[in-house]
Amino acid sequence: MKGQIIAIGDELISGRVVNTTSSFAAARIFSAGHKITRITVVGDSPDDIKQCLKAAIRDSQFVLISGGLGPTSDDITNEAVAHALDLPLVENHQVMEQIRNAERRFGHSASEEFKRKLSMLPKGASVLEPNGCAAGYWLKYQGAYLFFLPGVPEQLEKHVVQKILPKLNSLDQERPFVALKVFKLFGLSETRINMDLEELQTWDSSLKVGYYPVFPEVHVSLTASMKTAEKAQKIIDDASAVIRAKFQEFIVAEGQDASLASTLGESLKSRGMVMAAAESCTGGLLGATVTSAPGSSEWFDRSIVTYSNRAKEQELGVSPETIEVHGAVSSETALEMAAGARRISSAECAIAITGIAGPEGGSGDKPVGTVFIALALDNHNLVHRFLFPGSRREIRMLTVETALDWLRRYLVYGSLLPGYKPVF
Amino acid sequence: MKGQIIAIGDELISGRVVNTTSSFAAARIFSAGHKITRITVVGDSPDDIKQCLKAAIRDSQFVLISGGLGPTSDDITNEAVAHALDLPLVENHQVMEQIRNAERRFGHSASEEFKRKLSMLPKGASVLEPNGCAAGYWLKYQGAYLFFLPGVPEQLEKHVVQKILPKLNSLDQERPFVALKVFKLFGLSETRINMDLEELQTWDSSLKVGYYPVFPEVHVSLTASMKTAEKAQKIIDDASAVIRAKFQEFIVAEGQDASLASTLGESLKSRGMVMAAAESCTGGLLGATVTSAPGSSEWFDRSIVTYSNRAKEQELGVSPETIEVHGAVSSETALEMAAGARRISSAECAIAITGIAGPEGGSGDKPVGTVFIALALDNHNLVHRFLFPGSRREIRMLTVETALDWLRRYLVYGSLLPGYKPVF
Repeated sequence: MKGQIIAIGDELISGRVVNTTSSFAAARIFSAGHKITRITVVGDSPDDIKQCLKAAIRDSQFVLISGGLGPTSDDITNEAVAHALDLPLVENHQVMEQIRNAERRFGHSASEEFKRKLSMLPKGASVLEPNGCAAGYWLKYQGAYLFFLPGVPEQLEKHVVQKILPKLNSLDQERPFVALKVFKLFGLSETRINMDLEELQTWDSSLKVGYYPVFPEVHVSLTASMKTAEKAQKIIDDASAVIRAKFQEFIVAEGQDASLASTLGESLKSRGMVMAAAESCTGGLLGATVTSAPGSSEWFDRSIVTYSNRAKEQELGVSPETIEVHGAVSSETALEMAAGARRISSAECAIAITGIAGPEGGSGDKPVGTVFIALALDNHNLVHRFLFPGSRREIRMLTVETALDWLRRYLVYGSLLPGYKPVF
Repeated sequence: MKGQIIAIGDELISGRVVNTTSSFAAARIFSAGHKITRITVVGDSPDDIKQCLKAAIRDSQFVLISGGLGPTSDDITNEAVAHALDLPLVENHQVMEQIRNAERRFGHSASEEFKRKLSMLPKGASVLEPNGCAAGYWLKYQGAYLFFLPGVPEQLEKHVVQKILPKLNSLDQERPFVALKVFKLFGLSETRINMDLEELQTWDSSLKVGYYPVFPEVHVSLTASMKTAEKAQKIIDDASAVIRAKFQEFIVAEGQDASLASTLGESLKSRGMVMAAAESCTGGLLGATVTSAPGSSEWFDRSIVTYSNRAKEQELGVSPETIEVHGAVSSETALEMAAGARRISSAECAIAITGIAGPEGGSGDKPVGTVFIALALDNHNLVHRFLFPGSRREIRMLTVETALDWLRRYLVYGSLLPGYKPVF
């Protein structure tokens, strides 16, 4: 099935809110073997909505329209759609029933405006969720299936998975089987990766290779569309073997849901190891990144975020003389922080980070972006100095990625250098 | 000036990468008083690019086209544009010069394919950045200004600010002055906020009020377009006074760049206070959230991320009996964690968090989403139990927001209840 997505909202067209919901819907629809040819964002303007909707219906077998279904004054989708398709608005009894239930439950009456906004739907509409208000509906118009969805991410995502995909799949029994695989790489440029994978691009016409910088990583996606699931999977498996052979230690994660943190966690778990961390300029971002992976409590013990010098001394036992002589941002401080975190936690390994994320605080000697990362494990206490480019946010992200990548490489390859090369 | 944005890329249309760059560009263009009527995403398909570009040129005074300018095999924008506009591709001497410089610098030759991809631009193109390759260009076509930009966020953002906005502004001296203000609220539903602000919606035709859930907050934006900057600002100031009076303690931040963390920081700084934190299920997310605000080292001392029971005992002095009798997720443990963090850090106040973020680890007694938040400050040791809904990610975000909001409210209002109400 070939379709389009239209997202409605002044908050989207004015750039105040990023359109994440369309990406979610597109990803799910694409993975199920259907095709999205266009994603369009328009503001809360009846004329723009009309023009967009009519153009989409002309070119598509299905259209997802999100946003503008709620009770607030800027929610105008129902009226705009009725106008665009020349359909009358009629009261939907299921929605009215839900509103009455809610009135009884909360013991007060909704306004007439509220009731009208939610219950008057374009003629022919069937609600997606019999037990909800403003929960979306669908209708068939000139051969195209139109799905109207709330713009709230959680609700939209639920409907896409539970209602729309099963519907599209039942309508299109002939769709190809799509196999998909994503590799996440860190420490190589997109151009370099593309050049190294030139052979894959002419391998098989049903295999598509995509390259996407997702800061600070580059993701390589393999997509194969075939008549059977087995055939599609076979091509992906063969291409995956090529990628693994070419990039080896630069691959920080395999699979859309995997991350550098989850890969590192698997390495630690398989060795029966637990890690700890001591963070300064990243302020907890390493801990937050690590623990965003479910199950991380099995291999992550603690992160000690010591933003002040006093905290570094008290928490981690960094000596005041070290900070006095070498500075809080120095190899010596980083090493003592890592040793301290390991000693206190009794974890098998510890990472320490101290640096200058900016925008203030740099000096000629140690410009913004200067970060020292230390590892304490086995009999080793290792430290490297890095100079990361970019904004405060980018420097912090590069620091966390490099620190975790270094530990991962050490465990798997015994290599002492992380993917992002230190300055000395 | 009225324009559109077209973002090109299979990674965008398939939903693998979220289209953040168009939002950035739209926000900047909108704030400068111009209008974006449509944002369209298409894949790396010459036909789709052609159709989209022609439709956009027909309806617009300017079009921003991003993506597909690089040297890799899926970069096809230049060819697609030349084809769509029926313009020949001609060698751009400035780009060729840059490629030759790079060859000399790196001491090796670029491939012919690489050179051709980057240097052959549609006839009439002027490069935006004389010292770069694949750095974007612009041309005038049938009265419309077309700007072609790299899809890489950092590069696109630089060009929008430094090249495109000055160009649009110089072309349109008559554009209205736009004043904009954003309020960020936590603890009230979007519907409730909308109902409370009904009067603003009919106040003045040049004032627009928008409501946007940005989890876990709801943002209210005020936009006024007027002939003079003073008039626009006056309306915004008057409307802001209404919002402040209506929502008071529910306003966690004022201004697009402000955040709950920066608001809290101002409150702490003005009282000469420093805070510390002890985190369990949020794993450092509170520290990362707080320190994403530049200058937070002035008021944030440390966060101790104690994921394991042992870490809670060793780092924070939580007694093993407390954990044994009441559990690691309990009022008692939270209180001891907060007291411990405050004692160790000598900070004037401390927040502690312990809970079950899921998806595993819940029980009948303490289901997933159960979180205890404790505050230690002045002579108080306070604790509340919460039951947060949603996914692991949402529970962690609600926890951090509630914890910071509670401390903010305590400092400013003396109120003991955070915006998100505890279960008892």
